[in-house]
Amino acid sequence: MSREEAAALDAVDPLRAHRDQFELPEGMIYLDGNSLGPLSHAARDAAQTCIGDEWGRGLIRSWNTAGWVDLPQRCGRRLADLLGAAEQDIRVADSTSINLYKLLVAALALQSGRRTVLTEAGNFPTDLYITDAATRAGATHGVRRVAFDEIEQAIDETVAVVVLSHVHYRTGARHDMAAVTRRAHACGALVLWDLAHSAGAVPLNLAGDDVDLAIGCGYKFLNGGPGAPAFLYVAPGLQPVLENPICGWFGHARPFEFDDVYEPAAGVDRWQVGTPGVIGMRSLEGALSVWDSVSISDVAEKSAALFDGLAAWIDGPLADAGFELVTPRDPVRRGSQVSCRHPDAWPICQALIEAGVIGDFRTPDILRFGLTPLYLRHVDVWDAGARLAQIMASGRWRDARFQAQQRVT
Amino acid sequence: MSREEAAALDAVDPLRAHRDQFELPEGMIYLDGNSLGPLSHAARDAAQTCIGDEWGRGLIRSWNTAGWVDLPQRCGRRLADLLGAAEQDIRVADSTSINLYKLLVAALALQSGRRTVLTEAGNFPTDLYITDAATRAGATHGVRRVAFDEIEQAIDETVAVVVLSHVHYRTGARHDMAAVTRRAHACGALVLWDLAHSAGAVPLNLAGDDVDLAIGCGYKFLNGGPGAPAFLYVAPGLQPVLENPICGWFGHARPFEFDDVYEPAAGVDRWQVGTPGVIGMRSLEGALSVWDSVSISDVAEKSAALFDGLAAWIDGPLADAGFELVTPRDPVRRGSQVSCRHPDAWPICQALIEAGVIGDFRTPDILRFGLTPLYLRHVDVWDAGARLAQIMASGRWRDARFQAQQRVT
Repeated sequence: MSREEAAALDAVDPLRAHRDQFELPEGMIYLDGNSLGPLSHAARDAAQTCIGDEWGRGLIRSWNTAGWVDLPQRCGRRLADLLGAAEQDIRVADSTSINLYKLLVAALALQSGRRTVLTEAGNFPTDLYITDAATRAGATHGVRRVAFDEIEQAIDETVAVVVLSHVHYRTGARHDMAAVTRRAHACGALVLWDLAHSAGAVPLNLAGDDVDLAIGCGYKFLNGGPGAPAFLYVAPGLQPVLENPICGWFGHARPFEFDDVYEPAAGVDRWQVGTPGVIGMRSLEGALSVWDSVSISDVAEKSAALFDGLAAWIDGPLADAGFELVTPRDPVRRGSQVSCRHPDAWPICQALIEAGVIGDFRTPDILRFGLTPLYLRHVDVWDAGARLAQIMASGRWRDARFQAQQRVT
Repeated sequence: MSREEAAALDAVDPLRAHRDQFELPEGMIYLDGNSLGPLSHAARDAAQTCIGDEWGRGLIRSWNTAGWVDLPQRCGRRLADLLGAAEQDIRVADSTSINLYKLLVAALALQSGRRTVLTEAGNFPTDLYITDAATRAGATHGVRRVAFDEIEQAIDETVAVVVLSHVHYRTGARHDMAAVTRRAHACGALVLWDLAHSAGAVPLNLAGDDVDLAIGCGYKFLNGGPGAPAFLYVAPGLQPVLENPICGWFGHARPFEFDDVYEPAAGVDRWQVGTPGVIGMRSLEGALSVWDSVSISDVAEKSAALFDGLAAWIDGPLADAGFELVTPRDPVRRGSQVSCRHPDAWPICQALIEAGVIGDFRTPDILRFGLTPLYLRHVDVWDAGARLAQIMASGRWRDARFQAQQRVT
């Protein structure tokens, strides 16, 4: 594909107008929206209104007059289509890590007759750590970590809960949510899906796939802002029987009556804990409004085309430079990213950043590029491939300044 | 005291210049800064810089270039003087409720040979709920709730952890932190202090009082913004031996190496969990900068004078209208608030809000007024007392529109 052909795709892109809703730095090609999504006008406006008007002028009254108290629910409503779930089964609260802990501890208590938690080897660290910790807390449980391809066959009658990232953060490989969930249910296990790299990236159908539990992140494909609050989903049938182990006052049936005894709220409201972080939640709410007019199938279709555009560089000019595609080629087996392997991924990533292309490095040898169809153009991906090819051809990435290891996220 | 005498106090108030650092709505007397502190210019600037420059332009790079990754520590540094503790023993993370859960579960594991958690009857609900829940999770533990005055004598060798609010949210009564901590240590118990109504309100000396554990809230006297992130303190000697039950990736010794096995960070960094909520934390950091030039002893002295000003109304003209002071009169036995009792506290509170004086109602019969010396003047308190006296004299609070019960925070 030539740059002209990429530009021609952009001209007929049904999502092309959405790019103007974001404040993208001039001249930067941002392929890291799967790590931190960019600022939208809507998120900025919502946060500023929250700070100046609601907090500044409304003060304490804004819990009622600006509806702060309903924010976890309002954000849930805006997530419903993206998750393929009913709004009353979704809330925004806390962080992804904390939501995982709450739901997993609760699910293990419900499944107390079973011995094993099953997860994927190499899952995102926080998922591994919290799975280990929640399991240690319940003395009869142990964790099994198995490879991506072995998950389904490893589910048996001993498994209490399967904890999986739907899309893997490093490789971009995607599990078959319906099939894994079906297999788990056939064995009497529950499944808890981490949707950090799925929500806003791939079509989801939590209700249709009969998913039990899910959590996910507000600051990646959803563009809610750095460290944005996270979401959680609980299937209607599980809502009355799961108990939040961290029972804070915002999860009480009547928080403002200040009862001495905890009575969990009905439905998913019991998964709130403390006072919600309002500014971050308003920013997320603004960011989610961008999705109102977006068809997730348009997103998936454009993501596939962007993938093909970048994969053509990796399979072509960059293969000779030592690059190897890691992300599955089958669109339904992957998320919305391109991960490739190169033994010198770190300095190459740094040289690419200097050239205005922001991707990220994942230890030990992965270059990861997020494909975010709301604001990325086909020409952006073409230019990113071309600049990477130039860097490899020139050997510029070998410069000493690109070698030093630094913290990255 | 006359209004002129109140104005004369304001003229020589060493804190008077700080009022200009806040964006207070014109004509409103805000006596609810103990529920939600007001917006400061510094908090607004920090949040706007974070949104527009750091997120908008810096994007993912801001984790390093804007130092987002150090925010929990930077906020801790600004809290050190207010808490009377070393900055390396403090972090900002999550919500007060979640920090309580983390520290209490960890402390109970350390004290596993002991049977009882001791707390105060009528403690803030979330403290009661989480104390109950954390105790149920450890099968050998039970909770004892005793009255404020019976705490010290109830501490014995069976007590694992004492969980107390230093200043009571309803009454404003303050425990003797040094004495309770000493008594607990003599019995081999740990103490976990909730400083939600203490930090920024009264002088604290966590290190000098040999405090084990403390948590607190960023959005009350510290003015960090609605639902601002919370803080926690762990005594140096306990830092290596307490394990965070919610071990997320940000509490790992090397989070960006994405290890498969959790290795807790040294010191208090292990109490971080997920990705911090950056916008809320930057707002809090800005708000805390206001305290840099403030002497907490000036705050305590002015708080005592504001208390006397309002108590004079309650003891005088308002006593005949059925008001009764609830907050202790001895300054070292109370926080920075005035709580009084009236059988019709709810409609009176609503009528007072309509008259431009924002206090709050706490079930069943408490009117609560926060005293926040950074931005409240003596004339504000005088005017609040006068308006309340007018409302009672006119009987206006009996109007039907003030009777309907609504959600309040």
